[in-house]
Amino acid sequence: MPLMNHQFRLAARPVGMPKKSDWNYTEEPVRDPGPGEVLVKVMYLSLDPAMRGWMNEGKSYIEPVKIGDVMRAFGGGRVVASNNPAYSVGDQVTGIFGIQEYFLSDGKGLNKIDTRMLPMPVYLSALGITGLTAYFGLLDVGQAKAGDTVVVSGAAGATGMMVGQIAKIKGCRAVGIAGGPEKCAYLTRELGFDAAIDYKNEDVSKALRQHCHNGVNVYFDNVGGEILDAVLAQLARFARVVICGAISQYNNTDGIKAPSNYLSLLINSARMEGFIVFNYQSRYAEAAREMAGWIAARKLKSKEDIVEGLQTFPDTLLKLFRGENTGKLMLKLAE
Amino acid sequence: MPLMNHQFRLAARPVGMPKKSDWNYTEEPVRDPGPGEVLVKVMYLSLDPAMRGWMNEGKSYIEPVKIGDVMRAFGGGRVVASNNPAYSVGDQVTGIFGIQEYFLSDGKGLNKIDTRMLPMPVYLSALGITGLTAYFGLLDVGQAKAGDTVVVSGAAGATGMMVGQIAKIKGCRAVGIAGGPEKCAYLTRELGFDAAIDYKNEDVSKALRQHCHNGVNVYFDNVGGEILDAVLAQLARFARVVICGAISQYNNTDGIKAPSNYLSLLINSARMEGFIVFNYQSRYAEAAREMAGWIAARKLKSKEDIVEGLQTFPDTLLKLFRGENTGKLMLKLAE
Repeated sequence: MPLMNHQFRLAARPVGMPKKSDWNYTEEPVRDPGPGEVLVKVMYLSLDPAMRGWMNEGKSYIEPVKIGDVMRAFGGGRVVASNNPAYSVGDQVTGIFGIQEYFLSDGKGLNKIDTRMLPMPVYLSALGITGLTAYFGLLDVGQAKAGDTVVVSGAAGATGMMVGQIAKIKGCRAVGIAGGPEKCAYLTRELGFDAAIDYKNEDVSKALRQHCHNGVNVYFDNVGGEILDAVLAQLARFARVVICGAISQYNNTDGIKAPSNYLSLLINSARMEGFIVFNYQSRYAEAAREMAGWIAARKLKSKEDIVEGLQTFPDTLLKLFRGENTGKLMLKLAE
Repeated sequence: MPLMNHQFRLAARPVGMPKKSDWNYTEEPVRDPGPGEVLVKVMYLSLDPAMRGWMNEGKSYIEPVKIGDVMRAFGGGRVVASNNPAYSVGDQVTGIFGIQEYFLSDGKGLNKIDTRMLPMPVYLSALGITGLTAYFGLLDVGQAKAGDTVVVSGAAGATGMMVGQIAKIKGCRAVGIAGGPEKCAYLTRELGFDAAIDYKNEDVSKALRQHCHNGVNVYFDNVGGEILDAVLAQLARFARVVICGAISQYNNTDGIKAPSNYLSLLINSARMEGFIVFNYQSRYAEAAREMAGWIAARKLKSKEDIVEGLQTFPDTLLKLFRGENTGKLMLKLAE
């Protein structure tokens, strides 16, 4: 009896929030690995806000997922068959596996990880694309320096909580913006943020004035919309606004809420800059080493929000857009 | 009979386009210079879009002009009395003189100029704040490099035409956006721009695609609004958007037209950065020297749009906001 693979494939380009009918759940036999190929059994899949962008047509930093293709996703898994001398059965690896149970690789783009050091989910969160995004966005694009006031939105999300913690490690004041008192308490009590602003229950502009007496030196934006506008109005001179994402806007069907306060960049000689973590590939190893050191020293905490079962994917993905996750959202497929 | 000074003072903070009633035309005797003081007879006054911002209340990069104060303006003039050993009667100087006929200075902030080399208006345009704004905005903030495609809006305005010419000198492709066929013809025929887009009669997005095959590497924005949005959609990877001004928005009474396409910064790893020329004071001399060399070598043309008469000020200022000037708008008060 052949090994069967199950997958979520893109059935339609979503309008607004992705619906069940935008996906096809499919089944097919796993092909035996050919020469040089490696078969990976997928154990964890990373769910990221960026996935919403990959579902859209049009020019972006990466090809859109084609209709009918397995949805693109980062994952971690175990090698279960290998015709590639670089990989042995039992190796633990990460890569772009897609929303499926098995991934057949030509051996390129796989990274071996050591799960005796840290559990696999950490390699997909703090030590994965998420942590690297926070690291390069904050330190390279945002040029955060000791003494700066760093504000981050989506602060209880996977990237946001890394940003605030790295800011603290680097001697900055860290102010997080998140939705709800539980998330805010988590940021200040568990992760060492100096302050947290609950955008669902507080006046963000007023709270920013209260927590950022000398203005905002670095704003790491994951959400866009009204919060971006509120922070723009509070920039310090020579501030850096890092555009990492705009999760509040990805499912809009009536256009983007544009940043009306962008002329704050002019009066404050400030900049707003977008980036893609893939720009930094040549420096991933260096950054991951530094972050692993922080984790070992218990200065940096990785938190995952793990949901079991491939079949929950269409619903679980929506947790991101509803702000229901705290930390790195991922699917667990197997032990 | 005492020497009389005439002035335009701010009477009210304008709502929308400045009206006659926003100004008071006043007369007062000129005080004799005290110890260390220098009396300047104003000959030329620079009219700049930034003046509209100085008339508004609220935090900015510079103090607002107070109600009742002489309107702030750069100017050029001649020393007619001096109790300061650094200045002699007959010296030609530039400084922040205000919209008036005489300026009494404590000697600080005056710059001597040599009008045997170049006429006084050039020291207020190509070699003044205007030229310096173009120089530092394009080369320092915009990081324009040979081979880049540089787009500039308000291209037939004082700063815009400097930007395009400096871009050409530095080996860039220069594309100007201006209003009307005459201005566009002037840019390509007289100033050496590679292309000009007439936003009043052309589809700007289509024209940008036509003239910028590999996207826009540097966009120097003087206008904001829909043109900023159109250019954002055509950015090349790692593009720099220099926010120098937003003249299309300064007189809006119903808020700013915000840049809806700002997420183009994200997908292109691009930046949008504001600046104030005053940040570069320590490098003014270096830049002015280089630009004077270009003028002498006939690589850089300075063009002024000179209107005679202090009393025309309230009307003449509006030429800026109606797009009626080509080159540097200034008032001539005396020979």
